[in-house]
Amino acid sequence: MNATVYRSAINIAAICGLYLAAAMLVPAAVDLYFGHRDWQVFLLSAMLVGGLSLLAAAATRSGPPPFNKKMGFLLVNLLWLVFSLVGAVPFMLSSLDLGFAKALFESISAITTTGSTVISGLDQVPPGILMWRSLLHWLGGIGIVALGLFVMPYLRVGGISFFKMESSDTNDKPFARIASFTRAFVLVYVLITIACTLTFAVLGMSRFDAINHAMATVATGGFSTHDASFGYFNSLPLLWAATFFMTVCSLPFSILIVFMVRGRLDALRDPQIGVFLAYLVAFSIAIAVYHRLQNGVPFHEALAHSFFTVSTILSTTGFASEDYTLWGPFVVAMAFFMTFMGGCSGSTAGGIKAYRFIILFNSIRTGLYKLIYPNGIHAVRYGNMTVDADLQRSVVLFFTTYLMLWAVGSLVMSAMGYDVVTSTSSVITALSNVGPGIGPIVGPAGNFSTISDPALYLLSVMMLLGRLEVLTVLVVLTPLFWKS
Amino acid sequence: MNATVYRSAINIAAICGLYLAAAMLVPAAVDLYFGHRDWQVFLLSAMLVGGLSLLAAAATRSGPPPFNKKMGFLLVNLLWLVFSLVGAVPFMLSSLDLGFAKALFESISAITTTGSTVISGLDQVPPGILMWRSLLHWLGGIGIVALGLFVMPYLRVGGISFFKMESSDTNDKPFARIASFTRAFVLVYVLITIACTLTFAVLGMSRFDAINHAMATVATGGFSTHDASFGYFNSLPLLWAATFFMTVCSLPFSILIVFMVRGRLDALRDPQIGVFLAYLVAFSIAIAVYHRLQNGVPFHEALAHSFFTVSTILSTTGFASEDYTLWGPFVVAMAFFMTFMGGCSGSTAGGIKAYRFIILFNSIRTGLYKLIYPNGIHAVRYGNMTVDADLQRSVVLFFTTYLMLWAVGSLVMSAMGYDVVTSTSSVITALSNVGPGIGPIVGPAGNFSTISDPALYLLSVMMLLGRLEVLTVLVVLTPLFWKS
Repeated sequence: MNATVYRSAINIAAICGLYLAAAMLVPAAVDLYFGHRDWQVFLLSAMLVGGLSLLAAAATRSGPPPFNKKMGFLLVNLLWLVFSLVGAVPFMLSSLDLGFAKALFESISAITTTGSTVISGLDQVPPGILMWRSLLHWLGGIGIVALGLFVMPYLRVGGISFFKMESSDTNDKPFARIASFTRAFVLVYVLITIACTLTFAVLGMSRFDAINHAMATVATGGFSTHDASFGYFNSLPLLWAATFFMTVCSLPFSILIVFMVRGRLDALRDPQIGVFLAYLVAFSIAIAVYHRLQNGVPFHEALAHSFFTVSTILSTTGFASEDYTLWGPFVVAMAFFMTFMGGCSGSTAGGIKAYRFIILFNSIRTGLYKLIYPNGIHAVRYGNMTVDADLQRSVVLFFTTYLMLWAVGSLVMSAMGYDVVTSTSSVITALSNVGPGIGPIVGPAGNFSTISDPALYLLSVMMLLGRLEVLTVLVVLTPLFWKS
Repeated sequence: MNATVYRSAINIAAICGLYLAAAMLVPAAVDLYFGHRDWQVFLLSAMLVGGLSLLAAAATRSGPPPFNKKMGFLLVNLLWLVFSLVGAVPFMLSSLDLGFAKALFESISAITTTGSTVISGLDQVPPGILMWRSLLHWLGGIGIVALGLFVMPYLRVGGISFFKMESSDTNDKPFARIASFTRAFVLVYVLITIACTLTFAVLGMSRFDAINHAMATVATGGFSTHDASFGYFNSLPLLWAATFFMTVCSLPFSILIVFMVRGRLDALRDPQIGVFLAYLVAFSIAIAVYHRLQNGVPFHEALAHSFFTVSTILSTTGFASEDYTLWGPFVVAMAFFMTFMGGCSGSTAGGIKAYRFIILFNSIRTGLYKLIYPNGIHAVRYGNMTVDADLQRSVVLFFTTYLMLWAVGSLVMSAMGYDVVTSTSSVITALSNVGPGIGPIVGPAGNFSTISDPALYLLSVMMLLGRLEVLTVLVVLTPLFWKS
């Protein structure tokens, strides 16, 4: 590692900080429109961050960046750190008067599209702050999809290299391809957000609520403008609409793009889509039946709440229509284990993700066959493709690291005094970027406002680790990485 | 698969049944000695099981068994099923009058050296039954070590093939080697049991308690003759003695044999021993310090209880000196995660086991290096040896299958109405053959007497799965296995 690399990385981060400073003008405008004096906070933050970023960018101006793997890892970590810090500035300065730990947690929860909040009494929070939370979600969603599309395949993290753009595209010029893909992606992302906003508005949300919830939905984030989350609206059609959009946004965006822009339906043949939708439907029906039998809820209601709950957890959004942990122990256990699972790769969803489970399951099956016929040829398949040893290894690497981080994080959390349910569920909900955990404190009816500062730092680290596919962060923490 | 295979398998199982019938004469003698009329139950059981076994053995008498892999898998499963059923007979017929589900659970818990009990009021239970439980533990311990030494390496299950007998022995004649090893192993096992019995007796246990607890300790089983388990004796020296013997018996027996019979100290260089002892000591000290700070217990007491508790969970014995779940949330979380971990390979301990963790950790480190330098050569090491791709795969196969079984089992358990803590902890304690779980029902202060029959069946299946290294059972459940 040499000075040029650091210089370039800081330069890019500073330019991104500049963009984020510009984004602060949106909540400033909102507060101005609603007549809340916090517009000054956002203007001040924008000037502060913008000024600093401009200085940093100017001081580190240089030629084209020396792009290599180390630079890639460094940059990704640096960017998310900068986003987190910059995002926290308005939370600290605003009339909410959050301390540093809480402000940073809220910002990281927003940018990683987790959606755990330390703010209670959301219904009384100034509109600018609410808009800033949703906007960070939305931008964080763009960031993570861009990372998954362009950077992660290059860094070969966690088996994602498998999902490079379609093979038919590989002969194009790479930069032209990236540019056209980026345009298409942002277009698709914006269009889905608009469609979601309109749907929510038509089904009864105020314009402000519709925009905020749409941004949180499309980013599979989960921040709401009400303490009761989707329960506030008390509308089954709204639950179904949210279920639809959350599910769509946990599908691979590259495939959505190919599907929407080029109209190629065969893109849906990616096996993870079918498997993800299959277990989403199966879990939803199982929980609906259980809810009906256990609590005597009319089946159509049970079905709406169940589909909403399953899709909000699997998509790692983390809204709540009710305190589903009161439906019975089976639902609590389902919620706990679904928190590990996540959506599809290349989406805004977090978690272990469907394609990894497919590869793990096929590895188990192949492994069992191999025990019976050691000399037979048993390839691990993913759809029509053969999963090579490197990819298998990287999936497994991710899986084991993920679970060990969960265990270690939970132990640290419990040493800080939190019971085993709160500890294990809050750490996994942070790591998977879902939002709510289990139990009275961090469950769907609670929030993170009473969690101590050290625990908030721990969970913040977990959210960042999970969002950056764990290994991206750990690589930077190895001594080998810093050797030149 | 053809008829000869089934015939041979049944023949061997019947002969083992005969031995187990003979073993029933021990508790019969005990009941006779203490003047309890249950001696008739054991005599009746012995005649019943012995007669049936004799008939089956005679009916299936044939030449030397056609030994191949399929036969191996079939036989291992069949043997443990037969042990479980035969072991249950006295529980059903005795004055305790346990139903079939409870009797089977108690028998499987004994034979798999788990040590979860459905019997409450142990202090009033007739001595023959107590002896039968301990004896099943002790025989189950012999069975599992023999399996690990001779059968599992041949079946190549879960990476155990790595720990075949020492390479210097491989040029001997295999059968002579097995015979001499078996003699050495049984000798070592008996000697340790005698040493443990004497130690317990000297430190204040009655002769009967000393024998029973020694058998449960050496098999890392965990059945006690008192509801309060080791808490009954209220003696720190006894806790230290039990800690020593439980720890010794979670070390690889093959290495203990080489060490004790041939006096070769270099056998202790197996990396899993150092790692296992290191985390045993580290966890014990961490918990002792926490216990001291949290509850103001004198440090030497905290240390004794903490070492005892950590070694009883890591060795998968499952005794209790106190309800450690009351020491604080950190201890609860530690107990939960330690339940997954287990001892060393080739011992009577269950769980994921230390050598797998070493290989998983080294795989993670290698994987991270590979992300930085994709073209570098990064071998996964286990001590001085290189872990080949096949072994890595089989370790991972075990790890993922284990965790998925835990998840599925917990969900089924929760659907039967048990809360998330009881469900997840009872399933993992069964799968790892530890004994106690967490929470008021299955925790160290509770027992399994109030668990419903369907849930007992589920946990019984989990105990067998865990004991036979999971894959051995799953292989037999694949359709491919039954194709001829």
